[in-house]
Amino acid sequence: MYAVLTLNCLDKRGIVADVTTFINEVEGNILDSQQHREELGNQFFMFTKFDISSLNCTRKELSEKMSEIASKYDMTWSLTFSDKQKRMAIMVSKYDHCLYDLLLRHKYGELNTEIALIVSNHLDLENVAEHFGVPYFYIPRDKDNREEADKKAIELFQSHQVDFIAMARYMQILTPTLLDCYPDKVINVHHGFLPAFKGAKPYHQAYEKGVKLIGASSHYATAELDMGPLIEQETARVDHSYCVEDLIQLGRSIESRVLAEAVKAHIEDRIIVFNNRTIVFS
Amino acid sequence: MYAVLTLNCLDKRGIVADVTTFINEVEGNILDSQQHREELGNQFFMFTKFDISSLNCTRKELSEKMSEIASKYDMTWSLTFSDKQKRMAIMVSKYDHCLYDLLLRHKYGELNTEIALIVSNHLDLENVAEHFGVPYFYIPRDKDNREEADKKAIELFQSHQVDFIAMARYMQILTPTLLDCYPDKVINVHHGFLPAFKGAKPYHQAYEKGVKLIGASSHYATAELDMGPLIEQETARVDHSYCVEDLIQLGRSIESRVLAEAVKAHIEDRIIVFNNRTIVFS
Amino acid sequence: MYAVLTLNCLDKRGIVADVTTFINEVEGNILDSQQHREELGNQFFMFTKFDISSLNCTRKELSEKMSEIASKYDMTWSLTFSDKQKRMAIMVSKYDHCLYDLLLRHKYGELNTEIALIVSNHLDLENVAEHFGVPYFYIPRDKDNREEADKKAIELFQSHQVDFIAMARYMQILTPTLLDCYPDKVINVHHGFLPAFKGAKPYHQAYEKGVKLIGASSHYATAELDMGPLIEQETARVDHSYCVEDLIQLGRSIESRVLAEAVKAHIEDRIIVFNNRTIVFS
Amino acid sequence: MYAVLTLNCLDKRGIVADVTTFINEVEGNILDSQQHREELGNQFFMFTKFDISSLNCTRKELSEKMSEIASKYDMTWSLTFSDKQKRMAIMVSKYDHCLYDLLLRHKYGELNTEIALIVSNHLDLENVAEHFGVPYFYIPRDKDNREEADKKAIELFQSHQVDFIAMARYMQILTPTLLDCYPDKVINVHHGFLPAFKGAKPYHQAYEKGVKLIGASSHYATAELDMGPLIEQETARVDHSYCVEDLIQLGRSIESRVLAEAVKAHIEDRIIVFNNRTIVFS
Repeated sequence: MYAVLTLNCLDKRGIVADVTTFINEVEGNILDSQQHREELGNQFFMFTKFDISSLNCTRKELSEKMSEIASKYDMTWSLTFSDKQKRMAIMVSKYDHCLYDLLLRHKYGELNTEIALIVSNHLDLENVAEHFGVPYFYIPRDKDNREEADKKAIELFQSHQVDFIAMARYMQILTPTLLDCYPDKVINVHHGFLPAFKGAKPYHQAYEKGVKLIGASSHYATAELDMGPLIEQETARVDHSYCVEDLIQLGRSIESRVLAEAVKAHIEDRIIVFNNRTIVFS
Repeated sequence: MYAVLTLNCLDKRGIVADVTTFINEVEGNILDSQQHREELGNQFFMFTKFDISSLNCTRKELSEKMSEIASKYDMTWSLTFSDKQKRMAIMVSKYDHCLYDLLLRHKYGELNTEIALIVSNHLDLENVAEHFGVPYFYIPRDKDNREEADKKAIELFQSHQVDFIAMARYMQILTPTLLDCYPDKVINVHHGFLPAFKGAKPYHQAYEKGVKLIGASSHYATAELDMGPLIEQETARVDHSYCVEDLIQLGRSIESRVLAEAVKAHIEDRIIVFNNRTIVFS
Repeated sequence: MYAVLTLNCLDKRGIVADVTTFINEVEGNILDSQQHREELGNQFFMFTKFDISSLNCTRKELSEKMSEIASKYDMTWSLTFSDKQKRMAIMVSKYDHCLYDLLLRHKYGELNTEIALIVSNHLDLENVAEHFGVPYFYIPRDKDNREEADKKAIELFQSHQVDFIAMARYMQILTPTLLDCYPDKVINVHHGFLPAFKGAKPYHQAYEKGVKLIGASSHYATAELDMGPLIEQETARVDHSYCVEDLIQLGRSIESRVLAEAVKAHIEDRIIVFNNRTIVFS
Repeated sequence: MYAVLTLNCLDKRGIVADVTTFINEVEGNILDSQQHREELGNQFFMFTKFDISSLNCTRKELSEKMSEIASKYDMTWSLTFSDKQKRMAIMVSKYDHCLYDLLLRHKYGELNTEIALIVSNHLDLENVAEHFGVPYFYIPRDKDNREEADKKAIELFQSHQVDFIAMARYMQILTPTLLDCYPDKVINVHHGFLPAFKGAKPYHQAYEKGVKLIGASSHYATAELDMGPLIEQETARVDHSYCVEDLIQLGRSIESRVLAEAVKAHIEDRIIVFNNRTIVFS
């Protein structure tokens, strides 16, 4: 059993010492600790994972003590506990490769999360949900009912206590209504090497440009399409012999991987968003 | 001793048979042969390398016979001979990593070319040229004398029988005057993953965007900046801890590699440009 | 509709011309043609894919004509037709990642094969087979009944017209009885970078050695354990922070990929085995 | 100006807090701190880099205070200062690619070290040393004078205050006499993916085995050939078309990179050796 503390503030001498001393005083044992500094802006970021099996205080007291340190340095911070799993929603359309990948990784124990439900604008993948024993909800969605559909989705997420959402090649643009409910909590995968090839049909764009590598990018979805903070990217080598269909085929495995890496990092509280960029601790 | 034949035409049955039969008739021995088809446009591309040590005709006759086949299929084609090395010019400014890389690969026998001369808008790298025994020419260049400077360069290239030019991080934009003299013969390296991060300071752009991979791209220079046909691209993994200076440092080795690969492919006549994309035979 | 011709013989002038002329005469249209030469041993290898939709002879006549050329050069050769799919058997134990990967790639149309059946020494993965609609056969297997079990497997393979076998992390050593029935037709994946880390528990071996990359290798199974001709290999970066369990987790995706690549190459007749090495055309 | 503290001991609660509190008390400011735990053996490893520009005590006092903490936990530890550069010797034979790579990276400021001298058993690369302004010493070496030659080398290293040695494709096996003087301070690069392809002619071995990736490995040299603790490894993709000469050519760039990475990590005190494995902090 462990806790994860992440924090961000202006850099100042003594932060690491104060935090680690505090953890020592409550008889936590530091398992991993990482720092990052941005020279521009003089920002300090910290990730600390500590064993809490012999904690000498309650979790409430732990939070209160941490809160005092945070006040001293004007920190933005978060404290989570390993025995309280985050609950994930998955949104899909018809492509199933990212969905299978997430469900299998979850089955293998790679993703320490509860998969609360799958939401889709199609019925096609219901049998995949069934195979893995996850509830599946069908919310039809077209240009005219976006707001309504996203409100239904929000209701479902709330009634299922969803903490964050993975868009597993969900081929729809979410409304600000939904995104505003889950800031920095909706993870999307784009099948292009952002910021190149934004928007529709990135593999077609890549083919026409004649690139020698294709890529996929996961990021937190924001109101501006494909412009949210990048979490993970990967590329794969191609050549002139790849037609668009070949690019799509090769893309499946990199899309799956960049989405899974982002989901994993989110679950493990290893991501801090700052200035539309991410710090992803390792 | 071998010849390399590359060709491009509308696809039709019998091309490969006609070409290989012709080579057999002149007693050439095919060492390597590659084809490519673009379904869109029904285009056919072919690369053939054949041993000519027992050729039963002159090279002139070889060309004439090939010319007949080319007429039949309305081909664009080229025929080169391994004992007639291409002559390369290198253009540099102050960064020396791509220059060292090319000169060393040439020394190791990786680049079957003659390095005719080095042209620079600075004096800084003259000692590198000396160390490798290559003539070095200094042509100062600023906003006001571009045309004049490029004309001087053209004169130098012509008097040194230059066949093609490698811009080894030459930090100037060439004029159409020069580019028009050497169409698909000026190879540039851009320190960004094109089409993302065109133009100035691509590593700064990449940092601000928070990408998780940086890249470099080599391409044939055209009048439109960083938009010529891509020849080779490579990426390298970075994370939030990389400042711009770190990106620049990591970038050096990928810039060197993508330029060298493009130069090597050009030397070996493995590149065909079509519709602003390249076919690069392997 | 196309045919694939692969061949191997001592190198001699005229082979490519004879083969391509023959294909032209029967009004085949060459779609792809690749050659390879081994200087040591003066060996010649060729892969040719040609459209047979306007063939002016029967397939039997095609084979006979090819047979004449083969005699002339003393070739080993094979001729297959795209409308006659190979039939694959998959052998599995309890790990399901390679199995899911093959079944999904097949579903996506990446593997132009018929999945005839799945054979396992456990019952665990029967539900996966059901989910994808593939027959599943349970053949218990232990130290004492290896011969018997493999004979049962052979019977099943024969009654299902199996052409080749993919061992998708099948955790048993096949007997020569089975392997001799399917020479160069049983594809195995080993979870180590061969020839390092042969045999049992390669991830444990890798951990103890402190390697900075782990790997997976697919190869044709032979009587000598993990020593058959390599088909595909891949590595992934690790560091000191990876415990054995982490290596196993990371390994899953590279194991899946190297097996799938080997299966795909086998299906497409792109592999020639020579001197315990493979030529894998691209 | 900063200090780097690395330490290793049995894991116990409070180590991180004690160390960071101590650094805070002397008014150091932690810039980077990384930990690692080996479950097997319950070992704890730590790397801490801290700004010492406002230190409130002398360096001697700093060491003494640290020494007290070390006693409490029975630590193995080291403390270095950024303004005291390590001095590197480079040993070479006739291949120059690793030598150029190290000298250029040093010139670019990537390697925060002083290159004290180059020692070679040949005269061939003296002009490279001259070009970069580094002293070059020729020590002939053959089967019969190994001990004598290594003793001369040791004398040179001592008179030049050498701290560590990079074997930049030095094609000789060092004697225990030399290695014992510089334990975990002689970095070698092997042109194979260790533990595969130990010893002589690894590219020939790789070719014969038919591997689909070649590799290079840097490690601390020990008395047992190619068996010292691995520091960095890299692989590159090859196929059947690569002859041994092609493997050698491709290998040059990966050899250069794995050696440079190891040298850089050593210079920056990021490596701890434990049980013949390395912890390499990032």
